[in-house]
Amino acid sequence: MIILGIDPGLAIVGWGVIEYRNTRFRTVAYGSIQTPAGMRTEERLKAIFEGMNELISTYRPEAVAVEELFFTNNITTGIRVAEARGVILLSAELGGVPVQEYTPPQVKQAVVGYGRADKRQVIAMVTRILGLEKPPKPDDTADALAIAICHAHCGGSRLADYFNK
Amino acid sequence: MIILGIDPGLAIVGWGVIEYRNTRFRTVAYGSIQTPAGMRTEERLKAIFEGMNELISTYRPEAVAVEELFFTNNITTGIRVAEARGVILLSAELGGVPVQEYTPPQVKQAVVGYGRADKRQVIAMVTRILGLEKPPKPDDTADALAIAICHAHCGGSRLADYFNK
Repeated sequence: MIILGIDPGLAIVGWGVIEYRNTRFRTVAYGSIQTPAGMRTEERLKAIFEGMNELISTYRPEAVAVEELFFTNNITTGIRVAEARGVILLSAELGGVPVQEYTPPQVKQAVVGYGRADKRQVIAMVTRILGLEKPPKPDDTADALAIAICHAHCGGSRLADYFNK
Repeated sequence: MIILGIDPGLAIVGWGVIEYRNTRFRTVAYGSIQTPAGMRTEERLKAIFEGMNELISTYRPEAVAVEELFFTNNITTGIRVAEARGVILLSAELGGVPVQEYTPPQVKQAVVGYGRADKRQVIAMVTRILGLEKPPKPDDTADALAIAICHAHCGGSRLADYFNK
């Protein structure tokens, strides 16, 4: 199955497309949608929406996996990230692609095998699992690939359950 | 000018369209976009997006006035409201309508003349200013009309500043 992993944000949306078949990964493409700080919020949301629509029409993913939000430090930033996330979920829905959300500990558990792994460990494992020459940049892109890998592991079994019903 | 006021939410988006000319108000239409709790979040966001697009194409507002978010009690609810808000801002941007955001104290100040007015006072003043037979329901709709009135007062002067430059 083709999975589009998304690490949401207003300034940077990390994305990664992987194919997962017979417990093997193939990296299709990855990158980031970036919007400059000087742009109006609405314009940035539009750029993210158009970027998402393009990713979905280009790669035709069978699932979009998105990180769930946790607000800890900066609530104002958190609100803007959630607004971007709303636009990302909308794009998936309009494109007819099912969305699955994962918490950061779920992603870490699935990729590193340890729910409290640090960022560096996650990036190292993503690079290794996908057989990349070097760690994807920016970190948001590596995170997006981690979320896609998480879905391959977690969502895969759920799909299996579904088909075995 | 025709103003579309929006009180964002995932379950209920209150909306109100007013016309403000020569310091006089005319109520054009008001209501709410409601999405059932049983719907998937992405579906609800799509319903809000389509509802917003329809409001913009029907009433052709010259401005969209939206309440700014404050998170106090429930952060999980707050995230969902912000996601809905992202979709609302996107719709305005795609429709080419400028967005202005107002904080709850700004709205209360503009409508009641007192930044810490309570909900009941705001609804009473909205009903009176717009010459409505009875208070609009649900409260989210009354709030949306309050935000539109706030924009007529606050945004009007700002526009005047702009044209007098």
